[in-house]
Amino acid sequence: MRHDQRENNELRSITMTPGYIKHPEGSVLIEFGDTKVICNASIEDRVPPFMRGKGKGWITAEYAMLPRATEQRNIRESSKGKVSGRTMEIQRLVGRALRSVVDLNQIGERTVWVDCDVLQADGGTRTASITGAFVAVVLAFDKLLQKGTLKKMPVTDFMAAISVGISSDGTALLDLDYKEDSEAAVDMNIVMTGAGEFIEIQGTGEEATFTGNQLQTMLGLAGQGMRELNSIQKSHLGNLAARIGETKQTKEDSP
Amino acid sequence: MRHDQRENNELRSITMTPGYIKHPEGSVLIEFGDTKVICNASIEDRVPPFMRGKGKGWITAEYAMLPRATEQRNIRESSKGKVSGRTMEIQRLVGRALRSVVDLNQIGERTVWVDCDVLQADGGTRTASITGAFVAVVLAFDKLLQKGTLKKMPVTDFMAAISVGISSDGTALLDLDYKEDSEAAVDMNIVMTGAGEFIEIQGTGEEATFTGNQLQTMLGLAGQGMRELNSIQKSHLGNLAARIGETKQTKEDSP
Amino acid sequence: MRHDQRENNELRSITMTPGYIKHPEGSVLIEFGDTKVICNASIEDRVPPFMRGKGKGWITAEYAMLPRATEQRNIRESSKGKVSGRTMEIQRLVGRALRSVVDLNQIGERTVWVDCDVLQADGGTRTASITGAFVAVVLAFDKLLQKGTLKKMPVTDFMAAISVGISSDGTALLDLDYKEDSEAAVDMNIVMTGAGEFIEIQGTGEEATFTGNQLQTMLGLAGQGMRELNSIQKSHLGNLAARIGETKQTKEDSP
Amino acid sequence: MRHDQRENNELRSITMTPGYIKHPEGSVLIEFGDTKVICNASIEDRVPPFMRGKGKGWITAEYAMLPRATEQRNIRESSKGKVSGRTMEIQRLVGRALRSVVDLNQIGERTVWVDCDVLQADGGTRTASITGAFVAVVLAFDKLLQKGTLKKMPVTDFMAAISVGISSDGTALLDLDYKEDSEAAVDMNIVMTGAGEFIEIQGTGEEATFTGNQLQTMLGLAGQGMRELNSIQKSHLGNLAARIGETKQTKEDSP
Amino acid sequence: MRHDQRENNELRSITMTPGYIKHPEGSVLIEFGDTKVICNASIEDRVPPFMRGKGKGWITAEYAMLPRATEQRNIRESSKGKVSGRTMEIQRLVGRALRSVVDLNQIGERTVWVDCDVLQADGGTRTASITGAFVAVVLAFDKLLQKGTLKKMPVTDFMAAISVGISSDGTALLDLDYKEDSEAAVDMNIVMTGAGEFIEIQGTGEEATFTGNQLQTMLGLAGQGMRELNSIQKSHLGNLAARIGETKQTKEDSP
Amino acid sequence: MRHDQRENNELRSITMTPGYIKHPEGSVLIEFGDTKVICNASIEDRVPPFMRGKGKGWITAEYAMLPRATEQRNIRESSKGKVSGRTMEIQRLVGRALRSVVDLNQIGERTVWVDCDVLQADGGTRTASITGAFVAVVLAFDKLLQKGTLKKMPVTDFMAAISVGISSDGTALLDLDYKEDSEAAVDMNIVMTGAGEFIEIQGTGEEATFTGNQLQTMLGLAGQGMRELNSIQKSHLGNLAARIGETKQTKEDSP
Repeated sequence: MRHDQRENNELRSITMTPGYIKHPEGSVLIEFGDTKVICNASIEDRVPPFMRGKGKGWITAEYAMLPRATEQRNIRESSKGKVSGRTMEIQRLVGRALRSVVDLNQIGERTVWVDCDVLQADGGTRTASITGAFVAVVLAFDKLLQKGTLKKMPVTDFMAAISVGISSDGTALLDLDYKEDSEAAVDMNIVMTGAGEFIEIQGTGEEATFTGNQLQTMLGLAGQGMRELNSIQKSHLGNLAARIGETKQTKEDSP
Repeated sequence: MRHDQRENNELRSITMTPGYIKHPEGSVLIEFGDTKVICNASIEDRVPPFMRGKGKGWITAEYAMLPRATEQRNIRESSKGKVSGRTMEIQRLVGRALRSVVDLNQIGERTVWVDCDVLQADGGTRTASITGAFVAVVLAFDKLLQKGTLKKMPVTDFMAAISVGISSDGTALLDLDYKEDSEAAVDMNIVMTGAGEFIEIQGTGEEATFTGNQLQTMLGLAGQGMRELNSIQKSHLGNLAARIGETKQTKEDSP
Repeated sequence: MRHDQRENNELRSITMTPGYIKHPEGSVLIEFGDTKVICNASIEDRVPPFMRGKGKGWITAEYAMLPRATEQRNIRESSKGKVSGRTMEIQRLVGRALRSVVDLNQIGERTVWVDCDVLQADGGTRTASITGAFVAVVLAFDKLLQKGTLKKMPVTDFMAAISVGISSDGTALLDLDYKEDSEAAVDMNIVMTGAGEFIEIQGTGEEATFTGNQLQTMLGLAGQGMRELNSIQKSHLGNLAARIGETKQTKEDSP
Repeated sequence: MRHDQRENNELRSITMTPGYIKHPEGSVLIEFGDTKVICNASIEDRVPPFMRGKGKGWITAEYAMLPRATEQRNIRESSKGKVSGRTMEIQRLVGRALRSVVDLNQIGERTVWVDCDVLQADGGTRTASITGAFVAVVLAFDKLLQKGTLKKMPVTDFMAAISVGISSDGTALLDLDYKEDSEAAVDMNIVMTGAGEFIEIQGTGEEATFTGNQLQTMLGLAGQGMRELNSIQKSHLGNLAARIGETKQTKEDSP
Repeated sequence: MRHDQRENNELRSITMTPGYIKHPEGSVLIEFGDTKVICNASIEDRVPPFMRGKGKGWITAEYAMLPRATEQRNIRESSKGKVSGRTMEIQRLVGRALRSVVDLNQIGERTVWVDCDVLQADGGTRTASITGAFVAVVLAFDKLLQKGTLKKMPVTDFMAAISVGISSDGTALLDLDYKEDSEAAVDMNIVMTGAGEFIEIQGTGEEATFTGNQLQTMLGLAGQGMRELNSIQKSHLGNLAARIGETKQTKEDSP
Repeated sequence: MRHDQRENNELRSITMTPGYIKHPEGSVLIEFGDTKVICNASIEDRVPPFMRGKGKGWITAEYAMLPRATEQRNIRESSKGKVSGRTMEIQRLVGRALRSVVDLNQIGERTVWVDCDVLQADGGTRTASITGAFVAVVLAFDKLLQKGTLKKMPVTDFMAAISVGISSDGTALLDLDYKEDSEAAVDMNIVMTGAGEFIEIQGTGEEATFTGNQLQTMLGLAGQGMRELNSIQKSHLGNLAARIGETKQTKEDSP
C-alpha cells in the first residue's frame, strides 16, 4: 500500500473552486491532494504577431511557483531574470494541450492567456495545471458566449492530464505525490481527451529504463484516472458541460 | 459616504489565515477587503555576503502580483526578465519595516526571506503585505523558539501599515481601495509600531499638493487604523502576542 | 555643533551653474557642498506609448552615479545589466516631483527627459537632483518659449527638495551630508512647492522609530531650507523666475 | 510512397564522421539525410555545484542551430540574450538520454559537456543530436580509458533516438524530414536502449489526437529504426563497441 | 623556420568550399590551415530601422565560435546571455569591411546578413571570416542577378583580410596560427582591396610596442598575402569574378 | 582652412584638471576642445579571477557617455541592460593602451579600475580618454608610492592617443572634431609611447579606402600631435613626470 494509504490506481482527493479570483474571465483553484494551483484564463482582443491577419485565435500558457510552494524556498524567476527550462517545458505543454481541444478558428483574433500559479507543490503540478486550466478556459469562453461575442462553445472535447509512474520496486502507480515522484524509476505525464485519445505522452526514465509491458500498464492506469478527472470537471461545469463538443475540431496548419 | 458604505475612518474587513501554506516556517493569508496576499516567511541558515561574519541576521522581502491579480492582466516580471521600479520600492519598504522591529543581533547569522504574493489586488497591497508579513515573521521565529534555536522572541514591538489619502473633493480617507486610490489627490502609506511611533511615512501628491493641516489629519487617521490592525494581529498570535517586546531593540549600524 | 561647523538649521553651500553642458535644452551643474550633480533636460517631440493620443506631454527622469562618485567604487549599472532598486526609487521620485509643478496639457505631445548624473556624492544626491532638475526644466521650456512652440511657461510653481533627519543623539538636522546621513537614526526627504505645500514626504527610521513631535520639528526645518533653495533657484533664473506660475495646474487623471 | 521515395519504415541515409573537430575529447559529425549536426563531447575535471562532494560525475548537453541552418534565417540566441523554450527542451532531453546509459559513479567528479550544433536542419535535429552525441561520449570516455583515468567503459548500453509520426492522411512514418514533420498530425520522439527498452517517449498531437492503436504502430516503427541506428553506431565504434555494457547501471538517487 | 615549416611570408593552406550549406543565398566553408569557418550570406527584403526610406541597402555581420572550436571549451554566449566584447569587435569589423566594397545604393532596401561561425579555431578566425564572407556575399548577389532583381553586380572590388605580426624574437610573420599568435609581441589585422588600397588596419602591441620600420615590414607582408588570397577567391568565383568592379563605389554618407 | 580656423596639423585646445573628483586615487578632467571627459583611476586590492595567484596586477577600463553628452540624447546603457559594441571596443582599447606602459609585475595583486565618463562629446572621446587616463593612473600610483606600498613608479613611459583622418577632399587632418569626423573618408586612432613607438593603430575607411601614401602622411601628423600631448601631460605631472620610466617594461605572457 502507498505511504498515504491510497491504492495504486487511486487518485488523490481532487477539488476545484471555480471563480476563486474575481478579475479573470475564468478562474479555478484546483487541488490534487496538497498540490494547489490557481488557474486563471484571461481574454485579450488581439493575437501575437505570428498569428495576425489569419482570422483565428491563440492560446498561450504561463506557469510559475510561489518561492515557498516547495519544501525548500526557490529563487524567484523574476529575480534571476530568466525562466528555467523546467518552467518553459511546462508552459509549452499546457498551451499545446489546451489548443488541441479548442477550435481556434471559432474565437476570432483573440488570445487566451492561461496563468497557472502553484501556491503549494506536492507532485503533479503540471497535471493539476492542465486539468484546472481546462475548466478556467471553458469558464472564460462562457463569458464570451454570454456577451454574444461567440455563438458556439469553441471547445471540442474534454481534456485532462494525469501522472503515472513505476516505483523503484517496479509497481505502476497513478497520480504520484512528491515523495513518490522523487523515488520513482519512471515518470510519465499523459494528456487525453474525453473520448480517450492521446494528446500528449511524455515519459522519462532518467537513470532507469522501462519495458513495453510497463508502458502498457501505465497507459491503462492513466486512462482510468482520466475518466475520473473528466467526471469531476463535468460536475463543476454544470450546464456548460453539455456545450463541450458542439464545435468539432478542424485540422489547421499550426503556426 | 464612501462608495462601499464605509465611514471615512473605517478599515475594510480585515482577515488573516495563519498556516495557509504548509511548507514555510511562517505563513499567513491576509485580506484587506478584496485584496488578498499570501505572506510566507522562510528561515535560511546564512546571511547575504554583505552581512557575513557580523554574528547577526538579516531580513529581506520580495513582492509580486499574480498576472491576473488586477483588472487588466500584467505581464509576468519573470517573462520581462526584470523587476519593475514599483515592485522594488515595495519590497525594499517591506524589508525595512520588518527590520525596524526585529533585533537582528538575536537571530544569529540567519536570513528571514519574506515573500508577499498578491493573489487579488484591490488597493493597499503594500500595507496588507507589511501587516501580514509581521505575523508570518513572528510565526517563523516561534518555530526557532520551539526548537530551542532562539531563547527570546527577537521582535521588539508590534508593527503594521495602513494607507490614508485625500480624495479629489478634499476628504481624508482611511484604507483606500483601488477605486478610491485611483481617484485620490494624495496617497500616503504609513508604517507604525505598536507604541505609536513612526517607522516610515511615504506621502505623494502627483499632480496635486497637500497642506500641513491635511498632513496632520491623515496622520491622525493612520494612528487610529494602526491600533485596530495591531489588535487583529494580536488576536491571531494568541500566546505569542505576549512575547512581542521581550527583546528591546538595540541601535546597530545598519549595513 | 555639526562636524563641518554648520548650525542644525543651516544648508551647505549651494551653487548652480546653468548651461554647464552645451547640447541639452536645459543644463545645470548643482552642488550641495561636495555633492555635485549634472541635471540635463532634453525635449523629445513624442510621448511614451501609454500617453499617445491624449494631446498632453510627459516628464520622466533618470538618475545615475559615476562609479567613483562615492568613497568606494560602485559597479556600473550598465555592466550589471540592471538598474538597482535605489536608482529606480530616486528616478521615480524625481519624475513625480517635476510633473507635480508642470501643466502637462500645456506642452503638447512632448517628453521632457531629465538626466541627473552624480559626479561626486556626499549625501543628499536625490534632493540636489530634484532642486537642480527644476531649474534645468525651466531652462528647457524657455527654449520652447523662445521658438514660439509654447506661449506660456507651463511651470505652475517653484519646487525644491531637501533632506532632514534625526541624529543618533536625537538632534534634528537640515541637509545632512554623507557622514551625518550614515549615522542618523531617521532620514527624511521632503519635496515642497514655492507656496509651501507638500509634494512628497519620505521618512524612514530603519532600526529606529520617530515620534510625532520629532516629525513636526523636521517638517519645520524642511520648510525653512526650502525657502532658501527657492530663493537660490530664483537668482539663477533671472527674468524667467517671473514666468513661473503663469499657468495654473489643472488636476488631470494621471496615467 | 513518400516525397523522397522512401518506404514508410525506412530511415534516411545516416552517416557519421568521428573525429570531425580536432579539439574535443569526442567529436562526430552526424547526418540524417540533409540534417547535419556536430556533436562534441568535452571532459571537465569538476562537477556543477549541486553535484559536488558526491564522488560521482555529471553529463549535461547544449544544443544550438546556426542562424541559417534553416530555410529562413533565425535570430541568434546570443543576440536575443536568452535561450528559447524549444532549445531548452532539446538540451534537457539530450542530457537525460545520455545520463540514462552512463554509470555516473564510474566517472568520478567530472562533467561531460555535450555540444550539439546543427549546421543544416531538415527535420529530426534532436534525434540526430542524441544518436551522434552517444558516439561522441563513447569516444570521449575512450580518451580517459587510454590515459588510465578510467578502468572500465562507464557506458552501460547502446542508445539512440528516432522520430515517428502520423501523416495528415493517417499513415505512420519513420524518421520524418522537415516537409513531413511540418505536415504531420502527430509527432513522436523516442529514445531507446540497445536492449530495446524505453528511455524517453515524447509524443504530441497539437491540433490533433491519436489513438492507442496508432501509438502501438509508431512504437513498432521506432523499435525497428532503433536497431538500424545501433548497428550504424557499432560500425563506427569498432573495438570500442565491445566495451559498451561492461559496466551495469546502478540505480542512484538523481540530483 | 616556423614551427609548421612555413616561410615567414607564407600563407597556410587555404581552401574554400562554396555551397557548403544548402539554405543560404551564399555559403562558403573556408579553411586557413586548421581554422574552419562557415560563412553564410542571407538576403532579407528589408533594412534595419535606421536605414529605412533611403532607397539603399545594408550589410551586417555576426560572428560566433562553437563552444569547442578552441582547445578549452568556451561558455556559449547564448547561455551567458550576452555577447563578448571580442565577438562584437569582430562582427563590426566584418560588416564594415564588406560594406566598403559594396555599392549599397545598388541593392535596394535589402539587408545582407553574414554569419561567420567558427567550427574549429587555430588563429586568424577574423581574417578567414572576412575572406570567406566576401565570397559568400558575391554568391548571394549572384542569386539576385540570376533572378533579375539586380542588373549589375554591386561589388566594386575584391577584398580580403590577413594577419601579420612580430614574433617575440622580432621576426615579421604572415598569417599567424594560434601558437604563433599567442606568443607574438605584435598582432596586426589588415583588410585590403584587390586594387591594393587599405580598408582597415588594426595593430596592437599589448605589453609591447613596435617601431615605424616594423610597421612597414608588416604592411609589405600583408600586401603579398592579400594578392594570393584574391587569386584564390577568383578561382572559386569562376565567371562571377569578371563581374566584380562593374559597379564603382560612390561615396555616400554612412548612417 | 578648417571650420574652426585650425591648421591641418593643429590640435584643439587641450586642458587637464587633475584632482577634479575627490574620492578616486587619481582623477583628471580632460578637455580636447569641447570634448570633456572625467578620467578616474581607482585602486582595488585584488585582481580578477583569471589573474589570481600570479603575483601581478591588472588594469581595466570602462567608458560611458552621459545620455546628453551628444547632440541627440542617447538611451542609457543601464536602461538597455547591455553595453554597446562601440563602448566595448573603446574600453578594451583604453585598457590595452594603459597596460602597455605599466609593469604589472610591480604593482602586486591589485587592479586599477579606470573610468572614463564623457560629459560632453565633440569628437575624439576615445583619444581624450586614453590621454587623460594616463595621467589619472600616474596620480593613482603616486598615492601608492606615498604610502610606501610601491617603491618605484611602475609606469615605463609616457603614452597618449590622437586621431588623424582624411577629409572627403583628401586632406589629412590632426585631431578631428565631431563635424570633421562625421564627414571624413578615413578615420584613424593612434596610441604611441613617449619614445615614439606604436602601441595601437586603428584605421578604418568605411565606404572609402586609403593608399599607402595617405597612411604615411597620417602617421606623420599623429607623431607630431603625440609630442605635444606628452608635453602637456608632463606639465601637469610636475615632479612625478621624472619618475615615468624608472621601471622598464618586462615582456610577460599576457593572460
